[in-house]
Amino acid sequence: MMFRHCTAIVVSLLLGGCTTFSLNAIIPRATGDLGVVIERASGSVQLVDTSDQRAFASVSGLGDLSHASVVFSRDERFAYVFGRDGGLTKLDLLTSAIDRRVIQSGNSIGGAISQDGRRVAVSNYTPGGVRVFDSDTLDLVADIPATQLSAIDEKTGKPKQARVVGLVDAPGNRFVFSLFDSNEIWIADFSDRSTDQPVITRFEDIGRQPYDALITPDGRYYIAGLFGEDGMALLDLWHPEQGVRRILPDYGRGQQKLPVYKMPHLEGWAIAGNRAFIPAVGRHSVLVMNIDSWEQVAEIPVQGQPVFVMARPDGRQVWVNFAFPKNNSVQVIDTESLAINQTLSPGKAVLHMEFTPRGEQVWVSVRDDGKIHIYDTDTLQLDKVLSAESPSGIFFTARAHRIGL
Amino acid sequence: MMFRHCTAIVVSLLLGGCTTFSLNAIIPRATGDLGVVIERASGSVQLVDTSDQRAFASVSGLGDLSHASVVFSRDERFAYVFGRDGGLTKLDLLTSAIDRRVIQSGNSIGGAISQDGRRVAVSNYTPGGVRVFDSDTLDLVADIPATQLSAIDEKTGKPKQARVVGLVDAPGNRFVFSLFDSNEIWIADFSDRSTDQPVITRFEDIGRQPYDALITPDGRYYIAGLFGEDGMALLDLWHPEQGVRRILPDYGRGQQKLPVYKMPHLEGWAIAGNRAFIPAVGRHSVLVMNIDSWEQVAEIPVQGQPVFVMARPDGRQVWVNFAFPKNNSVQVIDTESLAINQTLSPGKAVLHMEFTPRGEQVWVSVRDDGKIHIYDTDTLQLDKVLSAESPSGIFFTARAHRIGL
Repeated sequence: MMFRHCTAIVVSLLLGGCTTFSLNAIIPRATGDLGVVIERASGSVQLVDTSDQRAFASVSGLGDLSHASVVFSRDERFAYVFGRDGGLTKLDLLTSAIDRRVIQSGNSIGGAISQDGRRVAVSNYTPGGVRVFDSDTLDLVADIPATQLSAIDEKTGKPKQARVVGLVDAPGNRFVFSLFDSNEIWIADFSDRSTDQPVITRFEDIGRQPYDALITPDGRYYIAGLFGEDGMALLDLWHPEQGVRRILPDYGRGQQKLPVYKMPHLEGWAIAGNRAFIPAVGRHSVLVMNIDSWEQVAEIPVQGQPVFVMARPDGRQVWVNFAFPKNNSVQVIDTESLAINQTLSPGKAVLHMEFTPRGEQVWVSVRDDGKIHIYDTDTLQLDKVLSAESPSGIFFTARAHRIGL
Repeated sequence: MMFRHCTAIVVSLLLGGCTTFSLNAIIPRATGDLGVVIERASGSVQLVDTSDQRAFASVSGLGDLSHASVVFSRDERFAYVFGRDGGLTKLDLLTSAIDRRVIQSGNSIGGAISQDGRRVAVSNYTPGGVRVFDSDTLDLVADIPATQLSAIDEKTGKPKQARVVGLVDAPGNRFVFSLFDSNEIWIADFSDRSTDQPVITRFEDIGRQPYDALITPDGRYYIAGLFGEDGMALLDLWHPEQGVRRILPDYGRGQQKLPVYKMPHLEGWAIAGNRAFIPAVGRHSVLVMNIDSWEQVAEIPVQGQPVFVMARPDGRQVWVNFAFPKNNSVQVIDTESLAINQTLSPGKAVLHMEFTPRGEQVWVSVRDDGKIHIYDTDTLQLDKVLSAESPSGIFFTARAHRIGL
């Protein structure tokens, strides 16, 4: 029986069956339990398997991966890695190889994949603006220049463009992003399938220097943090006609202008039930906000300046990591009692956390120890430790199926 | 280059590389955009691809598939199909073939896969109880008999067991289910990894004849519908020590005992924001419930007796299908205004609906027309029609990453 299969395969190969796959691909496997770990110092990534809890491949040659982020194709086969150097790399998780790679700008800060999976958008610092690529070929399909500034770019002799941050996907094949230098939020609507040109809606004077943003898990609310003043900018994507409004007037560095060691990541906002858990800026606390009223309802003291505040998928726990000097530890908050369940000390420079899709484990990157710690989220016990080269971001393929990730 | 690959592959095959895969598997692909369509009349399934919007394989020999349901392995490679005849079939989406199949009981009503993906549980009508299988091998790992009844089973001469319904997975590697004949809800806790024997917690007198149940998307609340009386039974899985309480005292067939053409599916409850949209029993309406207070806040008139009431993943729309004689149509409710957006008429006997993971499309099975209609959920236009043999349930692999699906 096996011999018959072998014969058939050999015949098929000799007849030219090789054209559709490469050697590495020959062992069939699915990708729903895979992920990518960024190794920032070496410009490489590890490919990991959350079922076996191991790394199964390493891929190098991805350029500058500081602050790199990743989105996934809708079939969960390909990872799109956004590098700080403007590199956009399409990584094949089945062959453990780079499928395509383009240097699409001089300096990029992140990206997103459209709801239908057809387009990958990248937000750029230099030259500013958003570039949109075909997710199969990485061919450029739309170029969205940002607002021109009065300053002139030395290289091009043309006016500089506003830097783009906080780019996310939204339902209706839309991308939403913020313009740091021109205080704007834009919606680029790609829902008209007859054209690659989006309809752009601009919101001006949304607040000074939006530096990052998030979209709620249902894709309804886009919220930008402001670097230039306190408060946040909220856009209800169900009602763009109502414009952008300000919420949480005290959110930010405040009157005291406390030293902020690291601006918190807004993508790390945790939404559990009708409450959001938010890293305070510069203060040692996690704020709790009611997302119906958009008002703060509680403040939870934690041991340092929070960076990522992430909810376990069932919303029962929130995990928090911290800026220096508390960046060796993680605290786990019970979302019901708002008490600290436990303080864990994974090691030097805890940079990121990623939950398995249904939340039974969480993977924690410990950069300066070169380790990934895997915890059981039920017992809070350490299940396993893996090695990695200065690991930072961890991204699992289940993000492919989520709005705004 | 290609030739070199071929040579290597051929050598690898001749050296015995055939032992790990079969012929069908040789074209590598990922499975995050795949799904299974039940063809109930023929005991077969179609395997479909939501990126290309096509069926790519048909697999037969799955037995009686009336009321069949499906869950997926955590890598999204395997579909576990629960047949009405007690058959549990493990289907390989990469090889388009049956990997394993067991007849595990005489009459089964559904199943679930544990949070960690290691166990598949099946709830049984005959002989009653729950059987739990290793998800790799389909070896029986735990047998949970249900409460014994006073009636004697003619075949075995032993007391009959209560029929089990409404089986779901919950966080903490738990399964939760209801016992129709003994008015109970049980939790089977498999969180102790040192044993295959679960810890069972029983809740008695929860209400007469629980006939189906659901778990909220966050895995917190388990809610059973009652056939023998009005109202529903609610268990807060964060606080099992508080026991089961009754909610929605008027939910059910009511005083008038209206003719009910088809009991609605509770798995089809839609949760959007803090509201649940629920099919009324026997009445032409969808009920809206606040899930903080568990009280009804609105009633939406619809054109027939609702069967499935399903929320688009972003919660902006709820789609409803109906019992005979309105089973040729679907209504779309705007969850904000509670108005009917549109009434669609796909055709004869609309049985099920499944949204793509991020909600840009919905697949609708139209049994008596032998069709699957694919709609754009933004424009509500029909995008494509596929053929199928009396299609009923549609299940996409993204369910692997969700709690309670």
